[in-house]
Amino acid sequence: MTQFASRKGHMTLPVEEGQEDVVLDLYQRWQADALRDSDGTTMPDSLAEQDSDIYSVMCLVRADQAYANQHPEYLHRKYLMSFPVTAMSDRVAIFPLDGYSKDKYELDDDSDPKQWWEVRNRTLNKVIPTDKWTFDAQYQRIDIEDAIPYHEYTITFMARQVWDSVSMYNALTNDWKGPRIKSLDPYHPECRAHLLQHFAHWLETHPNTTVVRFTTFAFLFVIDTGEKNQDIYRDWTGYGETVSPRALEDFEQRFGYKLSPEDFVDAGYYNGTYKVPSQQYRDWMTFVQDFVVEFAAELVSMAHQAGKKTAMFQGDHWIGTEPFLESYQKIGIDINVGAVEDGVALRRLTDSGGDQIREARFYPYFFPDVFREGNDPVVESMSNWTKIRRAMLQKPLDRIGYGGYLSLANQFPHFIDHVTDISRQFGEYLDNTQRSESQKLPGKVAVLSAWGTARSWLQNQARDQRFYVPPRPDVMELVGNNLLECLSGLPFEVEFISFDDIAEKGIDPDIKVIINTGDANSAWSGGDCWDDHNVIVKLRQFVAEGGGLLGVSDPSAWQKNGRYFQLGDVFGLEKETSLTMGRVAMPLQIEKHHYLSQFIQGDEDFGNPSYVYPQAQDLTVLAAQGQHLALTARGYGSGRAVYLGNLPFSMENARLLQHILLWLTQQEETAHAWLSNNPYVDVAFYPQTNKATAVNFTDETQKVTVLNTDGEPQSITLKPYEWRWFDN
Amino acid sequence: MTQFASRKGHMTLPVEEGQEDVVLDLYQRWQADALRDSDGTTMPDSLAEQDSDIYSVMCLVRADQAYANQHPEYLHRKYLMSFPVTAMSDRVAIFPLDGYSKDKYELDDDSDPKQWWEVRNRTLNKVIPTDKWTFDAQYQRIDIEDAIPYHEYTITFMARQVWDSVSMYNALTNDWKGPRIKSLDPYHPECRAHLLQHFAHWLETHPNTTVVRFTTFAFLFVIDTGEKNQDIYRDWTGYGETVSPRALEDFEQRFGYKLSPEDFVDAGYYNGTYKVPSQQYRDWMTFVQDFVVEFAAELVSMAHQAGKKTAMFQGDHWIGTEPFLESYQKIGIDINVGAVEDGVALRRLTDSGGDQIREARFYPYFFPDVFREGNDPVVESMSNWTKIRRAMLQKPLDRIGYGGYLSLANQFPHFIDHVTDISRQFGEYLDNTQRSESQKLPGKVAVLSAWGTARSWLQNQARDQRFYVPPRPDVMELVGNNLLECLSGLPFEVEFISFDDIAEKGIDPDIKVIINTGDANSAWSGGDCWDDHNVIVKLRQFVAEGGGLLGVSDPSAWQKNGRYFQLGDVFGLEKETSLTMGRVAMPLQIEKHHYLSQFIQGDEDFGNPSYVYPQAQDLTVLAAQGQHLALTARGYGSGRAVYLGNLPFSMENARLLQHILLWLTQQEETAHAWLSNNPYVDVAFYPQTNKATAVNFTDETQKVTVLNTDGEPQSITLKPYEWRWFDN
Repeated sequence: MTQFASRKGHMTLPVEEGQEDVVLDLYQRWQADALRDSDGTTMPDSLAEQDSDIYSVMCLVRADQAYANQHPEYLHRKYLMSFPVTAMSDRVAIFPLDGYSKDKYELDDDSDPKQWWEVRNRTLNKVIPTDKWTFDAQYQRIDIEDAIPYHEYTITFMARQVWDSVSMYNALTNDWKGPRIKSLDPYHPECRAHLLQHFAHWLETHPNTTVVRFTTFAFLFVIDTGEKNQDIYRDWTGYGETVSPRALEDFEQRFGYKLSPEDFVDAGYYNGTYKVPSQQYRDWMTFVQDFVVEFAAELVSMAHQAGKKTAMFQGDHWIGTEPFLESYQKIGIDINVGAVEDGVALRRLTDSGGDQIREARFYPYFFPDVFREGNDPVVESMSNWTKIRRAMLQKPLDRIGYGGYLSLANQFPHFIDHVTDISRQFGEYLDNTQRSESQKLPGKVAVLSAWGTARSWLQNQARDQRFYVPPRPDVMELVGNNLLECLSGLPFEVEFISFDDIAEKGIDPDIKVIINTGDANSAWSGGDCWDDHNVIVKLRQFVAEGGGLLGVSDPSAWQKNGRYFQLGDVFGLEKETSLTMGRVAMPLQIEKHHYLSQFIQGDEDFGNPSYVYPQAQDLTVLAAQGQHLALTARGYGSGRAVYLGNLPFSMENARLLQHILLWLTQQEETAHAWLSNNPYVDVAFYPQTNKATAVNFTDETQKVTVLNTDGEPQSITLKPYEWRWFDN
Repeated sequence: MTQFASRKGHMTLPVEEGQEDVVLDLYQRWQADALRDSDGTTMPDSLAEQDSDIYSVMCLVRADQAYANQHPEYLHRKYLMSFPVTAMSDRVAIFPLDGYSKDKYELDDDSDPKQWWEVRNRTLNKVIPTDKWTFDAQYQRIDIEDAIPYHEYTITFMARQVWDSVSMYNALTNDWKGPRIKSLDPYHPECRAHLLQHFAHWLETHPNTTVVRFTTFAFLFVIDTGEKNQDIYRDWTGYGETVSPRALEDFEQRFGYKLSPEDFVDAGYYNGTYKVPSQQYRDWMTFVQDFVVEFAAELVSMAHQAGKKTAMFQGDHWIGTEPFLESYQKIGIDINVGAVEDGVALRRLTDSGGDQIREARFYPYFFPDVFREGNDPVVESMSNWTKIRRAMLQKPLDRIGYGGYLSLANQFPHFIDHVTDISRQFGEYLDNTQRSESQKLPGKVAVLSAWGTARSWLQNQARDQRFYVPPRPDVMELVGNNLLECLSGLPFEVEFISFDDIAEKGIDPDIKVIINTGDANSAWSGGDCWDDHNVIVKLRQFVAEGGGLLGVSDPSAWQKNGRYFQLGDVFGLEKETSLTMGRVAMPLQIEKHHYLSQFIQGDEDFGNPSYVYPQAQDLTVLAAQGQHLALTARGYGSGRAVYLGNLPFSMENARLLQHILLWLTQQEETAHAWLSNNPYVDVAFYPQTNKATAVNFTDETQKVTVLNTDGEPQSITLKPYEWRWFDN
């Protein structure tokens, strides 16, 4: 197998026992340089001894099932709120687990209910004193006395998880019949000691492994499961499954106050990442992060001492590791692996700090839900790849990879060829960019949300998403407003800032445009973060002094002082929330002579009607849906403001966003080198290698004329889907 | 002209000088028995002496323009809020009237600004002390000192109205060139005395007038006018134009507290009727009502003493007269005249208490905006008439009439014939019903809103209305959800109740269904009235004990205690407001075997997507738009609950509502006499005359089978648009 060493590749290839020939073939064609096992597959001995990197999956908290079965007290716990029960008399009986999966959850009998649980009257939002209820352990029931008829009651209880969510999903998806996998909580020192010992042994017994691929360290994202074993709540970045009495006690020691069960269940909202986080939840996140970083650093150090590199998969038990926070670098990880389905996911991988290698694990995963008769996996892959390529042009990506059953993928030769193309294009990208960054337009663009940097490049779920049933639960296909996807492929320096950043540090002078995009009440728009006149004043000043402000959907939405959009005075408009229906609608006049007018054809997709109307005489209306504003522009002092009702992702909308950002930064009259104005062609320039590139995203020939760095026009014609490289 | 007396009619005919022959012709053909003048027309002397009722328009507050010109201190005043101005330094200058019509408004120089005006920092919502601002009377400007840069400031000022809104509308619409009409405020005793004297003289000099048609008494509805003389805000039932320093001082005496300018301008929301009213605004309404009733009663008494009857037009200066309140009966009016464009407007006229004659003034008004070349006035009239007929079958109407320039209408012979038909059908209706009421199904239906009875049968404007530019400003064409129009023609006893009613008196045992319909935040849905656990408990109990609950759009919407729909536990669902996006959408299963399923074809118009999703296992989904719930049903205790996303008016939706109400009252298995199940045919039965009737609303032949009171099936076939009467 000496051919493995003949050419260095850039791809991590999943392997499978009995598929050794396929592996050898694809190793070449896909330009692989690393092999990996996956959940459900193991590394064939013959391959593990080859001269390539060998990634071995390590999910330590799931690694020792015997120990997990012996120690239910160390299983993952979480606070769940029972479904509300209405009192029909003065006595109420509630079975806390009613409505939840009995295969997954048990009532945690290690934590005293009277100490750790909470019974609430939800109609009055009052805690019921512990002497007014009793827990019947035999019947797993709470009885409440002196209830008030027609009031609702809930139990917030600690549940023990006896089936790991990801294992459960994989088992149910693939019809696996093996034992139900449990996860251990390493916060308990005894458990941690055992897991470290287990890991030490594992390192010793895996001499061929060159890269430990952690999947991941301690705590899983949040999936709540209903009584039919269906998902009922998901939060891929939520901290809800990190709780134990021991950790709560330590938290109280450190932060000087006690968290209540309600801080976790949050009236049934469970601190969803789309919500503006409470201070308690932020503190808990800090607490968890500090623990996980410290624990992960120990594991990484052990791997390094064993002469192995480490990779972290940004998924599964990744809670507490936040690549965009500085603390992440303390872990010492070598390779960040991200599951990447679009440009936003790629930027989430490529834009974090530190000098880790970035490896994108592409979709589809080689599982039978996609690789089944009658389905063409190339469709999903191509849709992803066109989005990912745009974002790759903006920030360097180091490696790519796949996961799952290679035997399944190999039944689709068309798909094999397609990945061969992807990998070849990726190789050319590496050759030409040498992992350097493309040139950006002047002026930093900041996206303002309640989270700021901690949730950089996280998809901003919108209300429409809730009413879209995706084909698969593990892939997020964002519907409706998706400004971030448009932005992910544009040549602007982007950062994510929070309201706290503005309050504490003001606005960085490098920032030339601030974007606020999202539905009202969401962390993305900001919710009650807008209930702060200091922030409002700083943003007004920022625009008045020459800055650009871009609002999408419900920017600055917070009902107060006669406004719903707190910066409606800057945008020159207002949203109708049933409080201003007496204001008379005037027929809108669409402006045809504004700089941005030339980019509006009238057939743009601006998503849902905005319910936003003009509230300034000097507002320029560029596009509307009936009488609903869709795109407006306005001067404010020396600066400019643009409002967009929604910006679903499309190549047209992405290029429109580029023009809007150029207008907002007052650079619309400036000549820019290597800047495409064709929506279907992206162009980028790499100063370090002096290479330029152009990509055609369509199945038709495309032409574009751009200036080179000397200002000379270059006319480029690209064949369907062609990706070409040039010398400057 | 003896033929006038030969047959008693039921129609009030507008007359016009020079059109005497037309009047004589139409008096017969339209079965008139009364003549009226209109705004812009006068009664020809030859007609005024005929043997018919002579209605003479009396708008006393506009009647003496010489006096109005001499006494600016008695003109109508109102509080206006200046458009907000952002401080760009520590000094701000605001011209309060900027943006407002200079033809209509003047700054009121009779009320001391330091005493009656208010300057606010709207960013902090703080009143600026009077020593921090000065009013420059010469330049009509307020200068504010020590302003905070980038904070917004407003002036709430008293404006004097030097052009009556209705006169202004009529003048601008018809291009009238005469002097601008002013309105006087009779709250001032001197002014009132003068007006009474004027009225006494008018009575003496109008011997032929048999009916004084008041248009109306004291205060106009609210229309705010912008600087281009365009309407910028309208509230047909608002109390904003009733203010004077004298009245405010008297209010303080009576109610023991002082109203602030902010109580009127309401942060720029101006207490729009669609808003949940504040206690201050309610108190002010009571104060104004008491004054107007007392003043109007004096005028009516004078007219009666002069041997004349009195009619009140429920429009124009009608503020303070509320036909649904008991105080209204103290006025002593003989005839209520309502402008009626649909079923809801008709029920607003016919359902109020008292034994007044009810006269519907139909649209279109004979004005050149409708009666112009190329427009067919029959289209609007027929659309109105089909809606009005439905409602007429439910509550007795006594008279009909028209207004405007007869000469204009007479240029449209097709329209003249059409009105001849309407009047003939109306005459048959009077003959067969003898002004009695049709039979209703058992069980009262109550519509719950923040207003209750005071705003019975007032169109529930929704957010969509704000984005619809109607063809004419004086006619409200309701778009979107319009449950009331559907309900106006159904055989149910209807009443309107408020949250206060429930809190104070509980729920009348005759009420079998409670409806809550409207957008969140609106008075119709209830806004913060839902922040009351007592109301919630009473409604849960009402349903649990057998009642029916119907929610439309945003029923019980108020964010609290983990719910947006406070009665979401009863409905079994929740609205997505960006707080529950992690809850997983399950594909909806449409139930085909529910009683209501048979009435769902799948092509129903349920308006906008609801953003409402199931939140109960036992919810029956009857219709959906994608994953948005459109129609659901659920049992709760012994009662039932139905949710509708929206119910735009159509004959199909009206009949669907009938089936829903039957199901909610648990009468779906009961045989009902004279009840139509054909959406396009209405059937009614009049016990007092033992007559039944059936109306075909379509241009096609329709069949319907109904039971008579003996339970015998009657098969009825109706020609297009036919309205037929039967003996039982």
